[in-house]
Amino acid sequence: MAARKRKERLAEEKVFKDPVHKYIYVQDHLIWDLINTREFQRLRRIRQLGTSYLTFHGAEHSRFSHSLGVYEITRKIISQFERGGYADWPTEEKLVALCAALLHDIGHGPFSHSIEEIFDTNHEEWTCRLLLEETEINAVLRAYDPSYPERIAAVICKTYHEPIVISLVSSQMDADRMDYLLRDAYFTGVNYGTFDLERILRVLRPYQGRIVVKESGMHAVEDYLMSRYQMYWQVYFHPVTRSSEIILRQIFRRAKELYAAGFTFNWMIDPLKHLIKGTIDLEGYLALDEALVQTAFSQWVKEQDEVLADLCRRFLNRKLYKYVTMDYGDEGLWQDIRKHFRAIGLNPDYHLEIDFPYDMPYDVYRPDAAQAAGKEEKPPILLLGPDDQLSEISERSDIIRSITGIHQGKYHLYYPEEPLRESVSKLPANLREIFALM
Amino acid sequence: MAARKRKERLAEEKVFKDPVHKYIYVQDHLIWDLINTREFQRLRRIRQLGTSYLTFHGAEHSRFSHSLGVYEITRKIISQFERGGYADWPTEEKLVALCAALLHDIGHGPFSHSIEEIFDTNHEEWTCRLLLEETEINAVLRAYDPSYPERIAAVICKTYHEPIVISLVSSQMDADRMDYLLRDAYFTGVNYGTFDLERILRVLRPYQGRIVVKESGMHAVEDYLMSRYQMYWQVYFHPVTRSSEIILRQIFRRAKELYAAGFTFNWMIDPLKHLIKGTIDLEGYLALDEALVQTAFSQWVKEQDEVLADLCRRFLNRKLYKYVTMDYGDEGLWQDIRKHFRAIGLNPDYHLEIDFPYDMPYDVYRPDAAQAAGKEEKPPILLLGPDDQLSEISERSDIIRSITGIHQGKYHLYYPEEPLRESVSKLPANLREIFALM
Amino acid sequence: MAARKRKERLAEEKVFKDPVHKYIYVQDHLIWDLINTREFQRLRRIRQLGTSYLTFHGAEHSRFSHSLGVYEITRKIISQFERGGYADWPTEEKLVALCAALLHDIGHGPFSHSIEEIFDTNHEEWTCRLLLEETEINAVLRAYDPSYPERIAAVICKTYHEPIVISLVSSQMDADRMDYLLRDAYFTGVNYGTFDLERILRVLRPYQGRIVVKESGMHAVEDYLMSRYQMYWQVYFHPVTRSSEIILRQIFRRAKELYAAGFTFNWMIDPLKHLIKGTIDLEGYLALDEALVQTAFSQWVKEQDEVLADLCRRFLNRKLYKYVTMDYGDEGLWQDIRKHFRAIGLNPDYHLEIDFPYDMPYDVYRPDAAQAAGKEEKPPILLLGPDDQLSEISERSDIIRSITGIHQGKYHLYYPEEPLRESVSKLPANLREIFALM
Amino acid sequence: MAARKRKERLAEEKVFKDPVHKYIYVQDHLIWDLINTREFQRLRRIRQLGTSYLTFHGAEHSRFSHSLGVYEITRKIISQFERGGYADWPTEEKLVALCAALLHDIGHGPFSHSIEEIFDTNHEEWTCRLLLEETEINAVLRAYDPSYPERIAAVICKTYHEPIVISLVSSQMDADRMDYLLRDAYFTGVNYGTFDLERILRVLRPYQGRIVVKESGMHAVEDYLMSRYQMYWQVYFHPVTRSSEIILRQIFRRAKELYAAGFTFNWMIDPLKHLIKGTIDLEGYLALDEALVQTAFSQWVKEQDEVLADLCRRFLNRKLYKYVTMDYGDEGLWQDIRKHFRAIGLNPDYHLEIDFPYDMPYDVYRPDAAQAAGKEEKPPILLLGPDDQLSEISERSDIIRSITGIHQGKYHLYYPEEPLRESVSKLPANLREIFALM
Repeated sequence: MAARKRKERLAEEKVFKDPVHKYIYVQDHLIWDLINTREFQRLRRIRQLGTSYLTFHGAEHSRFSHSLGVYEITRKIISQFERGGYADWPTEEKLVALCAALLHDIGHGPFSHSIEEIFDTNHEEWTCRLLLEETEINAVLRAYDPSYPERIAAVICKTYHEPIVISLVSSQMDADRMDYLLRDAYFTGVNYGTFDLERILRVLRPYQGRIVVKESGMHAVEDYLMSRYQMYWQVYFHPVTRSSEIILRQIFRRAKELYAAGFTFNWMIDPLKHLIKGTIDLEGYLALDEALVQTAFSQWVKEQDEVLADLCRRFLNRKLYKYVTMDYGDEGLWQDIRKHFRAIGLNPDYHLEIDFPYDMPYDVYRPDAAQAAGKEEKPPILLLGPDDQLSEISERSDIIRSITGIHQGKYHLYYPEEPLRESVSKLPANLREIFALM
Repeated sequence: MAARKRKERLAEEKVFKDPVHKYIYVQDHLIWDLINTREFQRLRRIRQLGTSYLTFHGAEHSRFSHSLGVYEITRKIISQFERGGYADWPTEEKLVALCAALLHDIGHGPFSHSIEEIFDTNHEEWTCRLLLEETEINAVLRAYDPSYPERIAAVICKTYHEPIVISLVSSQMDADRMDYLLRDAYFTGVNYGTFDLERILRVLRPYQGRIVVKESGMHAVEDYLMSRYQMYWQVYFHPVTRSSEIILRQIFRRAKELYAAGFTFNWMIDPLKHLIKGTIDLEGYLALDEALVQTAFSQWVKEQDEVLADLCRRFLNRKLYKYVTMDYGDEGLWQDIRKHFRAIGLNPDYHLEIDFPYDMPYDVYRPDAAQAAGKEEKPPILLLGPDDQLSEISERSDIIRSITGIHQGKYHLYYPEEPLRESVSKLPANLREIFALM
Repeated sequence: MAARKRKERLAEEKVFKDPVHKYIYVQDHLIWDLINTREFQRLRRIRQLGTSYLTFHGAEHSRFSHSLGVYEITRKIISQFERGGYADWPTEEKLVALCAALLHDIGHGPFSHSIEEIFDTNHEEWTCRLLLEETEINAVLRAYDPSYPERIAAVICKTYHEPIVISLVSSQMDADRMDYLLRDAYFTGVNYGTFDLERILRVLRPYQGRIVVKESGMHAVEDYLMSRYQMYWQVYFHPVTRSSEIILRQIFRRAKELYAAGFTFNWMIDPLKHLIKGTIDLEGYLALDEALVQTAFSQWVKEQDEVLADLCRRFLNRKLYKYVTMDYGDEGLWQDIRKHFRAIGLNPDYHLEIDFPYDMPYDVYRPDAAQAAGKEEKPPILLLGPDDQLSEISERSDIIRSITGIHQGKYHLYYPEEPLRESVSKLPANLREIFALM
Repeated sequence: MAARKRKERLAEEKVFKDPVHKYIYVQDHLIWDLINTREFQRLRRIRQLGTSYLTFHGAEHSRFSHSLGVYEITRKIISQFERGGYADWPTEEKLVALCAALLHDIGHGPFSHSIEEIFDTNHEEWTCRLLLEETEINAVLRAYDPSYPERIAAVICKTYHEPIVISLVSSQMDADRMDYLLRDAYFTGVNYGTFDLERILRVLRPYQGRIVVKESGMHAVEDYLMSRYQMYWQVYFHPVTRSSEIILRQIFRRAKELYAAGFTFNWMIDPLKHLIKGTIDLEGYLALDEALVQTAFSQWVKEQDEVLADLCRRFLNRKLYKYVTMDYGDEGLWQDIRKHFRAIGLNPDYHLEIDFPYDMPYDVYRPDAAQAAGKEEKPPILLLGPDDQLSEISERSDIIRSITGIHQGKYHLYYPEEPLRESVSKLPANLREIFALM
C-alpha cells in the first residue's frame, strides 16, 4: 500500500529556491524521495566545477544543485512536448526521463577527473552500481517499480530502447549541458555564458527518436554554442584552474607511489587507503567526498615526504604553479629543461608538467568525429526544416562551422616559480628567458 | 628595499571576477599580498552562511568571497568620499580601512555560532590573535608598516582613534552588512534581498566621525532595511536552517560530554580534540575548517554512542528534526512532553529543543537599545539635513519604526519525527495533536 | 463557419517578446484577433506613464505593452489555478477573464488624468463604449460569442456575476498593478520596484469569489507592497513629474478658456476642437493620441496668446516649473504671494499651483476607507489561514500597517523660476526667502 | 562672469536614472546646459529604433536616452584612460569628446533612414548645421569656448585633428555602437544582445591616435561582435520591421508624387510640406518629429487618394505587408508577378517590393572593405600585443572571420495579402504557390 501511495503525485507541489531557474518544481513522490536519499544528499559535498573555485571564488556550487537543475530543465522540455501534443514524444517515459536527469551524476566522486585518471575509476560505472546495488536510491526506485533501477541505468549507459530519452540527458544540446552552462556562468559571475533558455526550449521538437531544433531556431542554437565557446575559454580551460588540477593530480600520484613504495603515512583514512590500493567498495566510495580529500591534504602537509607535503601546502594555500606558453615538439629543449631542474634539486616528474588544454573532457562542438581519447560521441544538433528534412547545423551556419573543432589552445609549461627564482644564477640564459627570470 | 617596493601601487590593477560586484579591483600591493596569505586563503573553506546550504542549495559561498566583497564596497565608499572632497574624511586612513574591511572576518571558524556557543571561543579574539601573533598576515602588515597590525586590530575591536574608520566596517549600514545582504540574496536565489547599492553609496557622507546619510536618501535606506527585514525572515531565521543548527550544536555538545565522560572515540583528529578539551592553539585553530568538521561527522556515524552517531547521520544525510509551533510558558506541558519522550526511549536533552528565532546574532534594526545577550551596540543610522542637523532615521520613517524591534518570531519545538511516529500508540492524545500524529 | 474556426485554439501558440515577462503567450484566436484590432493597436500611441518620461527618460513604454502584460499575468494566475484544480475557480470564465485583462485600458486617451480632469471625460466610460458600440473590438468579440461584449464590459465595470473574475482585474493585488509595478520599474530603471512575481503567483488562491493569499505568503505580500510604496515615492509622486503634469493641465485649461472666450487659434485639429467643445464622438476620441496632442503643442507655441505659447514651449522643451515645499493653511501668505505675482506681471492662475501628492490616482494600500475624491474602493488583501479563516493583511503585519494611509507628502508650490529671478528686486524679503532668491 | 562660472564643474554631480547604465553622471556645467537645450530635448520625440516598436513592443526608447548613454560610455572610457595614466590619451580633449558623444545624433529626424532616402536629406549635415548655426546648442557651446562649435562638428565629420577623439565616437567599437546594442537589447527584451561592457572597457587602450584592444581581450571582443551579430539578425533585420519600413517609405514616396502631380491634400502641415518640396529650413526641420509624422498619417487616412490612405491605415493599425522568400534574378518571373498584380487592380509600384536585408545601414563587422552604397569606412578593431605590435582582429579569430561579411540574408518579396487572397481565382498556379494561397 505504501508503494501504491508512492505512485501518486504530491498533494501540493514542492519547490526548491534556485538561483538559476528561480524555482525547481517537484510534483512526484518518487522524485521527492530520491532527493532525500543519502546518496543524493552526498552530492552536496562535491563541487560541480572541481578546483575552479581557486580561480573564480564564486564557483563553489555543488553537483547537488546542478542535478536539480538538469531535472528541472528536463521537466520543462517534456512539459513543452506534452503541451504541443507531439506524436514523437513517448509520454509514458516522462518519469524515467526525470529520474535519469536527476540521477545522471550520482556516481561522481570528489575532483572526479583527476581521481579517475590516477586511480582508474569511472564515475559512470559507479552511477550504475549506485542504481543497481543495495542503496537507498535503489530501494526507492524499486518500491516504485521493480524495473526502474535497470531502466534508469540503461538511459544513463545509453542502451535504453527509447533513444529520445537518452537524447534528453546526453546529446549536444542536452539538459545537462544547458544547466551547467547557465549555472557555471551564474556562480563564476561571467555573464558571457548566459543564453536564452526559454527561447531554446521553444524550438526543440521530438522527432523520430531524437530531439531536434526547428529551423527557425538556428540563431538560438548559434547563441547557445557561442556561450559554450566563451565558457570553455574563459572558465573551463582557464590556466589557473589547469594549474590547480595539475597540483591535485600530482598529490594523488605521489600518494599512490609512496604507498606502493611502502611509505608509512602519519595520517591516513580508510576510504582513501582503499582508493589508493584499488580495493574501494561502494560504502567506501560514498564516504569519499571533498571534505575528506581536503582533510587528508591538511594532514599530509606534516608528512615526512617533502614532495607530498609541498604539493598539499600549495593546494591548500593556493600557491599554484606558474606557467609559460611553449611551442611543442622540441624534445631537446624539453630534456634540457628537465636536466637543469634536476640540477637545482627539483624533481621534473612533479615540478614540471606540459599541458595542452585541448585534451580535455570538454569540446565546444564537434558534430561528427568520434572524440579523441576514447570519449564517446554525442549526437549532433539537427535542424528540422519545413518539409521535415533534417540537416546538421554546422552545414548551415558559418559561425558554428568556425568554432567546430577549433584548435586554439597553446601548450603551457607549469612549474613552481620560487625555487627557480632562488637558483636563477645556476640556470643558462635560454632557460632564464623561457621562464622570464631576467 | 623590498618593503619600499611594497609601498607602491600595483603596476596594473588586478581584478577578481565576482558575481555580486562584477569585478573586485585590487590596486595596492599590500591588499594583494594579504589575499595571498594562507590565513586568508583558509576562508575559502568556511561557508558564509553555515548550514543554510541545507535549506537553500545555492548558499555554498565562502567567507573568502564575502571578505573580498566587504573590501570592494569599502573601496567604493572611500573613492566616492575622495571624489566629493569631503573634509570630514581622513584621507590618510584609506589603506587601514581597506585592510580592516578585508580582514574583519579572518578569525571565523567553521559554523562559528554553534562552536562559539558550545566551546566558548570567540572569533573576534581569534581575529586579533591572527593579526598580532606570528602569522603570514602579521608579517605582511608589519613589512608594510610596523604599526599596521595594531591599527587594524584596533579598528576591528572598535578602539581605533578615528571612529569613522570603525563606522565603515561596523555600523548599521556598514560595508559588511551591505555585502552579505547582496551576496546571500544572490547565492540563495531570493531576489527580495537586493537593494540599490549604487544609490546607497551616492547618499553616504562622512560627517564628524561618522558615516551619515543625506536626508534625500531616506527612501534608499528604507529600501535597504526592508531588504534586510525580508532576508531575516526568509533566509536567516528559516526554520529548516534553525533545525540544522540545532543538530550541529547537539553533535558538538554530545562530543564534549562524551569526552568529559572518558568515552573512547574510534576516530579523532587533533584540532578537534583540542577544541573539545579547550586547549586549542593558533595553529590548531587554523586547521579547523568545515572539511575537517564534516570528515569528523562522517567518521562518527560509526561510533558506539548511538546519540552521537544518529545526530551525525542526520546532519550528513539531511534527516533534520521537524518542528511544531508552540506558545511558550506552559512549564507543565513542557515537563509532560519530556516525560513521554523518555518513556518511548528518547533523550529529551537531545531529542527536543525549544527555539525562539529572536535570540539570534541578527536583528533587523534597533537604533537605541544596548542589545540583548551582551551583544554590542551598533551605531544607528543618522540623516543629515540641509542645515547640518542630524536625526535618527526611525524618528523620521514610519516604516523603519514599524520594523524596529519587531517580535514576530514564534517558539518552535524541534524533535525527530520517525521515533514519535513509531511509538504513536504510546503517546497521549494531547501530544498526538501537538505533533500532528493523528 | 468562420466564427466556428475562431473558437479553436491557434495551431501553434504565438509569442510576443516582452522585456518584463520574457515572452507573452497567445494561444487563442480570439485574443490574437483582439490584439490586431485598430483600437487595440492605438494603445501603442499612448504612454503608460504619461509625462513621467520627462523625469525618467526610459519611461516611454506604451499602454499597449502594459495591456499585454496584464493579459499575461492573468493567464499565469489562471493557469496556476487550473493546475491546482481548485474548486473555487470557475474554469469556464477563463476566456472572459483574459479578454477583460487585455482590454481593461482601451478607453484611455493621451495623458488621461489631466484630460479627464479638465474636459470631464472618463476612460472607463470610453472603454465600455469601445466594447459595446461599432468597433473592430466589438465585432471580434461578437463573432466569437454575442454575449461577450456585454460580459467583458460587466467585468470592467465591476458588475459581473462572478466576482472572482473582477478580482483578477481589479483589486489590491490584481494583474493590472502587478504588471505596472514591474513594467514601470523596468523602464524607469529603478530596481526598488521589483518584487518576486513567481512567488506571489504561487501563494494566490481562488476562494469564495475572491483571490486570497495563503497565510505563508504574508512576507511575499509585504515585499510586493513595499515595492509599491517605493515606486509611489520614487516614481509616481516625483515632483518633476508633478510639475510636468501641472503644465500639461494648464495648457488644456488655457486652451479651453481661450476657446470659450472666442479666441481664434491659428492652428487647430478636429478631434481636439471637439474635445474642448465637449462634442467629441467615438471616432474622434480614437484619433486622439499623444502624437496629436504633441503636434498641437508644437503648433501652439506660435499662437498669439503668450500664456498658452509659453506653457507649450515649457512642456516641449522641458522648461518646467520649479517648486518649493510649504506648510499649508496660511491663507494670508497665499494671498500675499498671488498679489506679488500679479505685481510683477505674472498670472497666479497659471503661474502658481499648490500641489499635494496625496490627492492622487494612487495609494499605497488602504484596506478599508472608501477612497477620497469619489474613487471606488478596491477589495483588500486577505490571508487564508490553515483553518480557512480569512484575515485582512494589515491586521497581521506591522509593516503593512505602517504604510497604510501614510500621509508623508508635503505641499509643494510650483512656479516659473525665470520671471521671479528677473524681478527679484520687486519682491519682499519673505518671498525672496520662500523662493530661495537670496 | 556667467561664462566664467560655466567653466566650473557642477557643485554636486547630477545623475539621470538610466535602465542600461543604472546612472548617468553629469559633472560639467557645459554638459548639463547642452542637455537642457530645446534641440537636445527634441530627441525625446524621436525613437531610437524607428519602426521596430511594431515588431518589439518594448522598443519605444528615444534617441534622447541613447545620446545620454553614448555620453556615459565615453565618460567611462576616458575616466579609465585617465586612471591608467596612458600617455597616448590627450587629456585636454576630454570635454570635446564628451560633447561630441552627447551631440552626435542631434541631426536625426523622425524615421531617418526612410526620410533621407525619399527626400534626400542627410542627418550628419543637419547635425553640423545645428552645431554651427543659430541654435541654443551653438550658444551654449560658444559661451563656453568660441572654438567649440567647430571642434565638435569636426569630430562628428571625422576631420578633427586628434583622430583618437573621432575613434571614441565612430569606429567599429565606438561608444555609439556599445550603447545602442545594450539599449536595444534591453528595450526589445532580447537578452542575446548583451555583452560585458565593464570587461570591454577594461581592455581598451589609447594607442597612437586610435583606441585599440589589449590582446588578452580578444575573447571579450568576440563576445561583443557575436552580440552584434545576434542583434542584427534578430532585431535590426527582422522581416516585420522591414515590412513596416517599406510601408513608411511608400507613404513618403506617394505623398511626394502626389504633391508633384498637384494633388490637393485635405490636411497638410508646414514642416511636412517643406520637406516634400525640398525647401525645409532649420526651424522647420526641428519641428519635424515622430508625433508630427504620425499625426499626418492619421489625417491622411481620410485623403481621396486610396493608395495613400491605405498605406497610412496599414501603418497606424499595423496591417503590414506579408512577405515570401525568393531567389533573386528571375526577371521573367518578376515581370510576370507585376503583370498579374496589375491585372487584379494592384499597383506594383506600391504593392510589391523586393527587399534584401544586406543592403542596410548596419553591418556586423567588415574590417577592410569600403562599404557598399557609398557608406564610409569605420576603422577596424586592432589588438595590441605584448610587444606593441598591432593586428587586425579577424586575422586572429576564426569566429570573427566567420561573421565578417556574411551574406546570410535572403530576398524577400513584400505585398498586401488581403487583395491577393480575394482575387486568388484570377492568379495562375505558380503565383498561388509563391504566395502560399493554396
